[in-house]
Amino acid sequence: MNIISTRHMKRSFIEEVLERTKKMDPVAESKKQLDILEGKILATLFFEPSTRTNLSFTTAMKMLGGTVIGFDNPRTSSVKKGETLADTIRVVQSYANAIVMRHPNEGAAALAAEFTNIPIINAGDGSNQHPTQALLDLYTILKEKHKIDGLEITLAGDLKYGRTIHSLAYALGKFDVSIVFASPPALRIQRWIINDLKSAGISVKETDNIETTSDVLYLTRIQKERFPDIEEYQKVASAYVLNEESLKKIGKETMIMHPLPRVNEITPEIDHDKRAKYFVQSSYGIPTRMAILSMVMGD
Amino acid sequence: MNIISTRHMKRSFIEEVLERTKKMDPVAESKKQLDILEGKILATLFFEPSTRTNLSFTTAMKMLGGTVIGFDNPRTSSVKKGETLADTIRVVQSYANAIVMRHPNEGAAALAAEFTNIPIINAGDGSNQHPTQALLDLYTILKEKHKIDGLEITLAGDLKYGRTIHSLAYALGKFDVSIVFASPPALRIQRWIINDLKSAGISVKETDNIETTSDVLYLTRIQKERFPDIEEYQKVASAYVLNEESLKKIGKETMIMHPLPRVNEITPEIDHDKRAKYFVQSSYGIPTRMAILSMVMGD
Amino acid sequence: MNIISTRHMKRSFIEEVLERTKKMDPVAESKKQLDILEGKILATLFFEPSTRTNLSFTTAMKMLGGTVIGFDNPRTSSVKKGETLADTIRVVQSYANAIVMRHPNEGAAALAAEFTNIPIINAGDGSNQHPTQALLDLYTILKEKHKIDGLEITLAGDLKYGRTIHSLAYALGKFDVSIVFASPPALRIQRWIINDLKSAGISVKETDNIETTSDVLYLTRIQKERFPDIEEYQKVASAYVLNEESLKKIGKETMIMHPLPRVNEITPEIDHDKRAKYFVQSSYGIPTRMAILSMVMGD
Repeated sequence: MNIISTRHMKRSFIEEVLERTKKMDPVAESKKQLDILEGKILATLFFEPSTRTNLSFTTAMKMLGGTVIGFDNPRTSSVKKGETLADTIRVVQSYANAIVMRHPNEGAAALAAEFTNIPIINAGDGSNQHPTQALLDLYTILKEKHKIDGLEITLAGDLKYGRTIHSLAYALGKFDVSIVFASPPALRIQRWIINDLKSAGISVKETDNIETTSDVLYLTRIQKERFPDIEEYQKVASAYVLNEESLKKIGKETMIMHPLPRVNEITPEIDHDKRAKYFVQSSYGIPTRMAILSMVMGD
Repeated sequence: MNIISTRHMKRSFIEEVLERTKKMDPVAESKKQLDILEGKILATLFFEPSTRTNLSFTTAMKMLGGTVIGFDNPRTSSVKKGETLADTIRVVQSYANAIVMRHPNEGAAALAAEFTNIPIINAGDGSNQHPTQALLDLYTILKEKHKIDGLEITLAGDLKYGRTIHSLAYALGKFDVSIVFASPPALRIQRWIINDLKSAGISVKETDNIETTSDVLYLTRIQKERFPDIEEYQKVASAYVLNEESLKKIGKETMIMHPLPRVNEITPEIDHDKRAKYFVQSSYGIPTRMAILSMVMGD
Repeated sequence: MNIISTRHMKRSFIEEVLERTKKMDPVAESKKQLDILEGKILATLFFEPSTRTNLSFTTAMKMLGGTVIGFDNPRTSSVKKGETLADTIRVVQSYANAIVMRHPNEGAAALAAEFTNIPIINAGDGSNQHPTQALLDLYTILKEKHKIDGLEITLAGDLKYGRTIHSLAYALGKFDVSIVFASPPALRIQRWIINDLKSAGISVKETDNIETTSDVLYLTRIQKERFPDIEEYQKVASAYVLNEESLKKIGKETMIMHPLPRVNEITPEIDHDKRAKYFVQSSYGIPTRMAILSMVMGD
């Protein structure tokens, strides 16, 4: 079983992940060990930097009694010598029971899966997908809003290059939700994603600001590098910053989410607002990844 | 419980660490496992390079049956993306039972402790403090000299920027000792540290050479970068080098210590002198850190 | 017991490694744990990049129930501060039961062994030796050809700088084999290795192409950097590339081996040829290193 993309993920599979995550949650919170993956080895291949995702997969695996090998710095690996991804995967498969990988190229995880029979978990492939983030996002929504069906969710910021957004949009598309896409014109979500969602019967709207009363406002960073000139960037980016002032225009029950790390798109002054749930969201990464690892490698 | 600085550390606490270290010592020496931290997770966040401190904390944690996660290269982490220390800590606290951190900024560990309820252990914050080094230094003195009270200790080299020196000076200040500070004028220890020690009733002297008959001579490296010009550096640095020649001017019972790594301030020709104890000192890092981890995370 | 070089390794020792590897093979394949090194600590000190060797030692140690500490990036270590290898070894020996090390300098592992009483395993010292690679290569030959004595083996590519070649040539030299050295004139194997092998009664030939009917063709990469100009490189390198075309000139029973990573010296189009055994060879790294670790650290 691979976890490559949420695009063709079945609702029943997502529900099973959420169900399992609920069981893992108290284990994760007490930082207890549950040795169901004892004797199993997870390889974490990070061809791109990561703190949160790498550490949370490692923590989840170790909490389940398993062992972790891997690298987080391709400069110290054979990749530097020019080895292809296919070769790296074929070698590592004889070391491990499953592979978690992050890679700068879109489609890298799918490619890797073609060269091995052990499970591949995509921890981010370029600006394409980051499915385990979407699963923990859904768990956060379920846990905090007690349901997913029937909600309106605003996805905001860099919708074009944000793999987190792409994964979450498709995952939400398996539920009975309304989605609002809020972004500057230059960073709109791809037309084919809109079309896919509409075909699935999802109500979709587009807007260019984050003033919303949605049940959830999911904010992501707008990166300077995406804009031809700095003035253009400054003009639009300021409309996607959440601070004490702009928070006043957000619904009283709107839960604020962010995949982290944030830089300045959410100011620390609002961290203690009861709507701000991004650190709680981050903490759900552990039980969600415990659930995924147990499904992929467990008996 | 945090281990941030030796400045306000109580003598009774230091004595408890030394007592526990004594019990851990045979465990560390035989490289046996003592599973009192089984199921506990330590996060080691090294925002600055380290071999010895990182490896010795990792070894100590694993010898106690615990699990280690972390990073030793901030270039591969979210820090590179501009995440604040506060955010990193708030995320990592949901992964681990305690955090060991090294950071280039003075006060970073104290800042981190404000954002979390899990224990923070300072493994070096800029040129401020390195308290676990001081505790292993005290254990070395106790073990080799069979007491701390009543001794005269010379701290030599870069007293201005050396965090090891600052931590050790304050830790020694809880005992009934005499301290001699030996350094070039440009690298003298801060006046407020001298004043703090004098207020605590410690006898303090200052000198500009390492010729001593103290019970302990604790040498540290003088870094080129601290001097405006290379000539100035060469003029003073040579007076803080311990070799066969300069060793003749050191007391017959003076124990020589160094936090390591050394570069050329102690030449290898004196490694086999019976007074040279820096490798023994280094080896006490394991039992001392086992003691600290067990106090911080144990039941 | 150290594993520094195959040059003076006894045939009886090699046979014991092969025998033990055979017992470890099913354990490695099912990725089960065999806890004979529980409570033991292995330090992996990689002063030079590695994926395969580092990951496979780590995996082998963990499969045997042991613990691994270490670094794979000297830029994050004390080495950066100018510490000598001798000092690093003397410090690390108090943390671990054995050390695996890779270092850019020829003789580094032998030097390290002079400063410690714990076992040193050489995982590559410059262009000198890589003995555990040679042992897994021999295991591959034994496993796939059911014997070593009586075989003809062609070692091809960069024979001058290839540490894998040097280790394998000496290891083969303990058996009753014929060796063919195939390389461009500029990358011929050292005369003293030829002489050593001939003194040991080995039949040795040299050639400048890889067309062979040997039982084994062991190919290695020819690096651009070895040639004064790029034209010179391109002229010779093309004769050491194995693709569908050149494969036709290789014996029908000739097993093709490569230490990996490969870049373009073997094209992926021949990966499914039944003679291509380099991924199988790579997978034998785990049981071979399990055997070595158990011999070096086991009771």
